[in-house]
Amino acid sequence: MKGVLSSLSEQRVRTSFARQGFMKKLGVELRDLGFGTCALAVGFDETMTQQHGFFHAGVTATLADNAAGYAAYSVMPEDSTVLTTEFKLNLLAPARGDELIARAEVIKPGRTLVVVRADVYGCKDGVETHVATMLATAMCLAGKADSSEINDPSRRPPHPEARVKRASKGGPPQDEEAAS
Amino acid sequence: MKGVLSSLSEQRVRTSFARQGFMKKLGVELRDLGFGTCALAVGFDETMTQQHGFFHAGVTATLADNAAGYAAYSVMPEDSTVLTTEFKLNLLAPARGDELIARAEVIKPGRTLVVVRADVYGCKDGVETHVATMLATAMCLAGKADSSEINDPSRRPPHPEARVKRASKGGPPQDEEAAS
Amino acid sequence: MKGVLSSLSEQRVRTSFARQGFMKKLGVELRDLGFGTCALAVGFDETMTQQHGFFHAGVTATLADNAAGYAAYSVMPEDSTVLTTEFKLNLLAPARGDELIARAEVIKPGRTLVVVRADVYGCKDGVETHVATMLATAMCLAGKADSSEINDPSRRPPHPEARVKRASKGGPPQDEEAAS
Amino acid sequence: MKGVLSSLSEQRVRTSFARQGFMKKLGVELRDLGFGTCALAVGFDETMTQQHGFFHAGVTATLADNAAGYAAYSVMPEDSTVLTTEFKLNLLAPARGDELIARAEVIKPGRTLVVVRADVYGCKDGVETHVATMLATAMCLAGKADSSEINDPSRRPPHPEARVKRASKGGPPQDEEAAS
Repeated sequence: MKGVLSSLSEQRVRTSFARQGFMKKLGVELRDLGFGTCALAVGFDETMTQQHGFFHAGVTATLADNAAGYAAYSVMPEDSTVLTTEFKLNLLAPARGDELIARAEVIKPGRTLVVVRADVYGCKDGVETHVATMLATAMCLAGKADSSEINDPSRRPPHPEARVKRASKGGPPQDEEAAS
Repeated sequence: MKGVLSSLSEQRVRTSFARQGFMKKLGVELRDLGFGTCALAVGFDETMTQQHGFFHAGVTATLADNAAGYAAYSVMPEDSTVLTTEFKLNLLAPARGDELIARAEVIKPGRTLVVVRADVYGCKDGVETHVATMLATAMCLAGKADSSEINDPSRRPPHPEARVKRASKGGPPQDEEAAS
Repeated sequence: MKGVLSSLSEQRVRTSFARQGFMKKLGVELRDLGFGTCALAVGFDETMTQQHGFFHAGVTATLADNAAGYAAYSVMPEDSTVLTTEFKLNLLAPARGDELIARAEVIKPGRTLVVVRADVYGCKDGVETHVATMLATAMCLAGKADSSEINDPSRRPPHPEARVKRASKGGPPQDEEAAS
Repeated sequence: MKGVLSSLSEQRVRTSFARQGFMKKLGVELRDLGFGTCALAVGFDETMTQQHGFFHAGVTATLADNAAGYAAYSVMPEDSTVLTTEFKLNLLAPARGDELIARAEVIKPGRTLVVVRADVYGCKDGVETHVATMLATAMCLAGKADSSEINDPSRRPPHPEARVKRASKGGPPQDEEAAS
C-alpha cells in the first residue's frame, strides 16, 4: 500500500519519532516516510552487537518494529496514536554491514488494526543483503493523543484497550487489570 | 523444562553474554540462569522509551529474545553456538516500571532446533505486571565456537546454515547466497 | 486465566461451535470448556494425514485456533462475537496418536483483543505427547451477533473492523476495502 | 524467489501431495507449481465454514501452510523430505468466496531451513480479495524419504531432528524425548 502523505501526517510521525528516547540512544535515523511506508536506518558499531559481532537481533527487531509502527501510523486518523500489538520476525542471515535498514509497508489498513510487513537489510559498501522479515499488527487508538507521560502513574496510559473501554457502551464490566 | 546447569555451561553462557555489546549499551543484567531457563533484567530511564514514555517494544523484544536464546543455549552441547531463527512477540500491556524482567524457559529441546517461551514483566515497587509473551525458535550450530568476529569479512560467519552445509554430503549444490 | 463459566456463556460457545461446518467435517469434539479455557479433540484416520501419515499440520492448526477462539469467546460479553486476527504455531514433534487434543487458555483478556495460548497433544494409548504450541490473538466484536450468513453477499459481514467502523466518530473516511 | 522446476522435482511434489489424506478430504487442488512457488485452491461449501459462514481459519491455515511447504520442498535436494516447523498467520478479511487460493513463494532458501511467505485470496466471481498472509519456516530433512508410515510405531518417524541426530558426531547425548 502506497500513497501520498500529507505534511500534517508527516509532521505527526516525525514528532512522535523524536520523542522516542530509545531511537536517540541507538542513533536511528528516519530515512524515508510515505503514506503506508516507512524506512529507518542505523549505523554499526561495537555497542550494537550480539556475541558473534553482528547486529544484535534486538536491534533488528527494534528497527523493523518501529518502521512497521510508523508505516501504520501514517495511514491513521490525525486524532489518534499507535501501538504495536504483536509481531513476528524471521531472521534470514547474519545482520552484517555498516548499516541496517528497515523498510515497512502496510499490507492491510483497518480502522482498528493495521497489518504491516517490514524487511530489514544489512548494507555493506552499498550492497544490501536481506537479513530479516517481519509481519506485525499495529493498533489505532482513536481520539487519543500521541503524547508522552514518562512513567507518571497519576496519568492514564494510552493503552490499546483504554480507548475502546471508554468508547464501548454496554457489555459486562471487566476488572481494571483485564481491560488495561 | 528445568534442570541442573553445569558450571561449564553456566560459564559459557556468561562469557557469551559478556561479549554482546548491545547488552552493555542497554545495561541488561543476567539475573538468573538454569538448565533450560534464563532471566534478564534492565532498568528504566528516558533512553529506553517509546513515544508514550514506556519501555520501547524494541527493549522488550531484545530482553525476551536474549533470555530465550540463552535458555536455549544452556541445553545445547558444549561444542556449539546458538542463533535465534525466529520469534513472535505479543505485547499485552504498557511496559511500565522501574525495571523490565524477561524470563525464558525451553519448551522443546531438539538437536537442531530449540523452542522457547519467554515472558516479560514490568516491575514497579516490587509488583510485577505481565507485559509481553514470546514464542521463539533457537538453532544450535554444532561444532561451531561461540566467538566474536566483529564484522571481519575475511572470516566465515557462524551462520545457521554454514555448519549444516559443510556437514552435508550429496544433494545438489546451492549458491552461496542461498545457503549463507 | 481460569474461572467459572456461566451457563449462558457455555451455551453461547456450544451454539457457535455447532454452527461450524468445518468442525463437523473433521469430527472435532468440544471436550471441555471453562471461563478462559477450552479443550477440543479429534480422532485419527487416513483422511487427516500429511505425507508421512501423521496428523496434517492443518488439523493441528485448526484444532489449536478453534480452542483458542472459544477460550477467548468465553470471557467476552454476551452481546458480542469473536474472530481470530492472528496466530503463530510452533510444531514440536510429529502429530501422532489415536487422537489430537488442543487445550487453550486466555493469557490476557482485553475489551477488544484477547491473547490466548494453546497447546496440542498427540494421544496414543493414553499417553500424551506435546506436539505443538500456539500464541493467538482473538478480537471481540461487541454488539455483534455470532450468527451465520452463509456467503450471502446482501448481508454485512461481522468483520473485525465493521463494528469499530460504525462506532467511530470523526477521523478521515477510509475506503470500503481498507476498512472492511 | 522464482525459477525453473525440474520434472523430477515436480513429480516429487505431486506424489507427496497425493499422499496427503487431508488434501483429499478437503478437495484441495494443486493449481500451480514452480521452483520456489506453489499455488493451492479449494472450493467453498457448508462443510468448510466457521460460525459466520465463511471459510474456517483452519482451512485458510491449512491451504497456506501446505502451499508454503511445497514451495519450500520444490527447492530442496531430491534425496530429502520436508516438514513445517512454524508459521504465523495474519487474517486480514473474512474468507469469503466460491474458492480460496493460497500462493506461496520462498523468501530465503537454506540448506536446513527455508523461509516462505504465503498469501491467501478469497475468489468471488473472478475477483480476488486478500484474506490472509503467512510467514513460515520449513525444514529440510536431507537423506530422508518423503514416504508414508501411517502411524506405524515400529518405524522411525521422519522427524526434523531424527536425521540431524544420526548425522551428528560428538556432543553430549540427549534423551530420546528431547531429540525426537
